Amino acid sequence: MPHSPQEKKKVLARVKRIRGQCDALERALEAGADCGPVLQQIAAIRGAVNGLMSQVMEAHLREEFGHPATSEQQRAARVAEMSGLIRSYLK
Amino acid sequence: MPHSPQEKKKVLARVKRIRGQCDALERALEAGADCGPVLQQIAAIRGAVNGLMSQVMEAHLREEFGHPATSEQQRAARVAEMSGLIRSYLK
Amino acid sequence: MPHSPQEKKKVLARVKRIRGQCDALERALEAGADCGPVLQQIAAIRGAVNGLMSQVMEAHLREEFGHPATSEQQRAARVAEMSGLIRSYLK
Amino acid sequence: MPHSPQEKKKVLARVKRIRGQCDALERALEAGADCGPVLQQIAAIRGAVNGLMSQVMEAHLREEFGHPATSEQQRAARVAEMSGLIRSYLK
Repeated sequence: MPHSPQEKKKVLARVKRIRGQCDALERALEAGADCGPVLQQIAAIRGAVNGLMSQVMEAHLREEFGHPATSEQQRAARVAEMSGLIRSYLK
Repeated sequence: MPHSPQEKKKVLARVKRIRGQCDALERALEAGADCGPVLQQIAAIRGAVNGLMSQVMEAHLREEFGHPATSEQQRAARVAEMSGLIRSYLK
Repeated sequence: MPHSPQEKKKVLARVKRIRGQCDALERALEAGADCGPVLQQIAAIRGAVNGLMSQVMEAHLREEFGHPATSEQQRAARVAEMSGLIRSYLK
Repeated sequence: MPHSPQEKKKVLARVKRIRGQCDALERALEAGADCGPVLQQIAAIRGAVNGLMSQVMEAHLREEFGHPATSEQQRAARVAEMSGLIRSYLK
């Protein structure tokens, strides 16, 4: 998950970008960069990880709620699951 | 929003609790409390505000997706709106 | 803490402002405001609480490190305490 | 920064671990893992990035305040810089 090829591609592209940011951070640390710029790089990685989390949750929402539920039970189960994900990761 | 009386009651109870935590923090500051306990109180307020945000988003999810959409268009609009809320506040 | 009268005054003013934001949120909820604006108000409170936490930590830093330590032991204890506060609340 | 060989080694080890977590996440996504476990992995990365940020700020604090300032001016400059870092990244 996400299952659609386009969503998967976009999520994977973001993960690769975060790894690239880690590589750049490693080089900066090896080169003895100052604390200020190093913290800026880490803050950028933190922002990218939050963006990735949001992207995966949005893809999940689209996949779960983008088509009608086949039963009331399924609808209730979807809502309960999505609600749990919001509770767990909105912080 | 949230519109159901129970949801509204629960949300309001949480807001009142946060205000009570602010009152306690004010008293601690007036009394010259140490930095450590003051930061603990502020962190508790931060946690409570995050909990409130999650509660409101979950209530919105239940109200929007707890019953079938009347059209594909409405379904798509609901998903787009919820997706925007996740993107804005998951950080 | 913070102990200087000006710092204390500024911190207290911020706590009062957060309480005022809670009052406004309560009124909005009572009036049945929409989910979007309610979440915006909650996000503003979250930002204000983070600002308050930062302000208290900065005041503590100024009070602890704004004048020379009287011994190596005191210096080490100050650094260890401040380090613990950063570890606990930077998240 | 951090400049001491041990601090640098510990920070680099953490960056490498985060990269390893990104690799594991990429494999899970390629293998079509479910949304729940994927979000757990992303949350673990977010926690690790916050831990890294805290570690770098703590190392900076030790390096800046672990020995006496040579002048009042230097002390004030150190406090102002550290204060700015707390304000920027405590959120």
